[in-house]
Amino acid sequence: MTVATRSPGNFAAAQTGRAARLAIRGGTFKGQTAGLAPGYVQGNLAVLPGALAGDFLRFCQLNPKPCPLLAASAPGDFRLPTLAEDLDIRTDLPRYRVFRHGEVVDEPGDIRGHWRDDLVAFVLGCSFSFEEALVEAGIELRHIACNATVPMYRTSIATAPAGPFHGPMVVSMRPLRPADAIRAIQITTRFPAVHGAPVHIGKPELIGIADLMRPDYGDPIPIHADEIPVFWACGVTPQSVVAAAKPEFCITHYPGSMLVTDRRNSEFAIM
Amino acid sequence: MTVATRSPGNFAAAQTGRAARLAIRGGTFKGQTAGLAPGYVQGNLAVLPGALAGDFLRFCQLNPKPCPLLAASAPGDFRLPTLAEDLDIRTDLPRYRVFRHGEVVDEPGDIRGHWRDDLVAFVLGCSFSFEEALVEAGIELRHIACNATVPMYRTSIATAPAGPFHGPMVVSMRPLRPADAIRAIQITTRFPAVHGAPVHIGKPELIGIADLMRPDYGDPIPIHADEIPVFWACGVTPQSVVAAAKPEFCITHYPGSMLVTDRRNSEFAIM
Repeated sequence: MTVATRSPGNFAAAQTGRAARLAIRGGTFKGQTAGLAPGYVQGNLAVLPGALAGDFLRFCQLNPKPCPLLAASAPGDFRLPTLAEDLDIRTDLPRYRVFRHGEVVDEPGDIRGHWRDDLVAFVLGCSFSFEEALVEAGIELRHIACNATVPMYRTSIATAPAGPFHGPMVVSMRPLRPADAIRAIQITTRFPAVHGAPVHIGKPELIGIADLMRPDYGDPIPIHADEIPVFWACGVTPQSVVAAAKPEFCITHYPGSMLVTDRRNSEFAIM
Repeated sequence: MTVATRSPGNFAAAQTGRAARLAIRGGTFKGQTAGLAPGYVQGNLAVLPGALAGDFLRFCQLNPKPCPLLAASAPGDFRLPTLAEDLDIRTDLPRYRVFRHGEVVDEPGDIRGHWRDDLVAFVLGCSFSFEEALVEAGIELRHIACNATVPMYRTSIATAPAGPFHGPMVVSMRPLRPADAIRAIQITTRFPAVHGAPVHIGKPELIGIADLMRPDYGDPIPIHADEIPVFWACGVTPQSVVAAAKPEFCITHYPGSMLVTDRRNSEFAIM
């Protein structure tokens, strides 16, 4: 249960979401999706049995900052036409993880063989979208500069529970100079569909983080003396909540192998 | 050179900007304007000789965060119809300060006797407007709870100079819990005409503030362990810059005796 990292080697030729999906569907692209189709929304995937889908949908609605739901399929339907007309969720990610009762049982390149008539696919917004806006604004993101995965922490902030889904909010941390932190709050406020504004700033101990250099997920990154830590709700939250619930069956994206959509990040700016 | 404080005793009956001005103009109201005409914009006043007006206008344009210019009169004109149709800047503030070469020479209740054909009146936005929006959002402001004047500090941030006008930016500080700090950044971003978003957050030493308990203006206020200091550009900046320039003649509002306009705070929200 990790999130994607960007690395220079991941940058591929696909310049649109559709081109990226066709390369993935055709088997010519199998890597991480960071850097693919710049400007297009990428999403986290969770596929759950219909019996759990209602609770998970409610969990997302109760916790929109860590679980910004971009689309949910009808039961058994592998299409998500609001994200892309031709999308087939069974074939359009480079790699998946299949779980039974909380254990990984397969990491296939397509899930047509695992598909069931009751499955519901959920696509959740991811921090790539707002990071793109921050980078465009000239704000340096340390984990990208370090070619590392953003550090993430389980917090003392509880999510609002729904059925079997409950647990702590996981946050990602980006160290920023104060003026950049203020600008980053303004910029990410424009993108509520992809985690939105930070949930915390400064003083990690207030949200149960004892040591910023020991993240629960991702990599530790240096924080300079003139910077403050800024914390965003993280898409690892629903992943860890689903893992803890140990559903009889579920499928997620393989870490870093996200869904690339036809929607543009800029469409999700609310102003 | 101070800013207005709010205190319960200041709250008067006038419910509109016009009613407040009529009571002031007629001599029946002589106190501080905090709490008068809730919802209506109040402003700082600076009146300068025409020979300095161009430089001061340029100073405001170069430094919009500390010097958010709401209106400037034509030379010799004591009206500001964009702020209120009937406004007479010579009579509509409860009290003024008249300076010659940087020294206070009078603190009259009207300035008709001091008016000159070359004077230009400048009205600058004030933090009352954004504080109202913060309080409406349920954010407690410590200096109001303490019935104190907000603490203000000269910083190491230089203003952009124009003619004789130059000097450090003065900031006001409000301690806020992190989630409230994030919300306060969002709210005040909507009000660029009244100082707008903070200029700094956390780490006072980075902007040259050695001790938060020793403000340069206003009162020290307690900061709790779960709070971070949030700093906004302050309207005392142009006042201290004008004082340092020691113009041969100038008039300002008396501390706390602001201009009450017919414009509503909500009109200045950019979204």
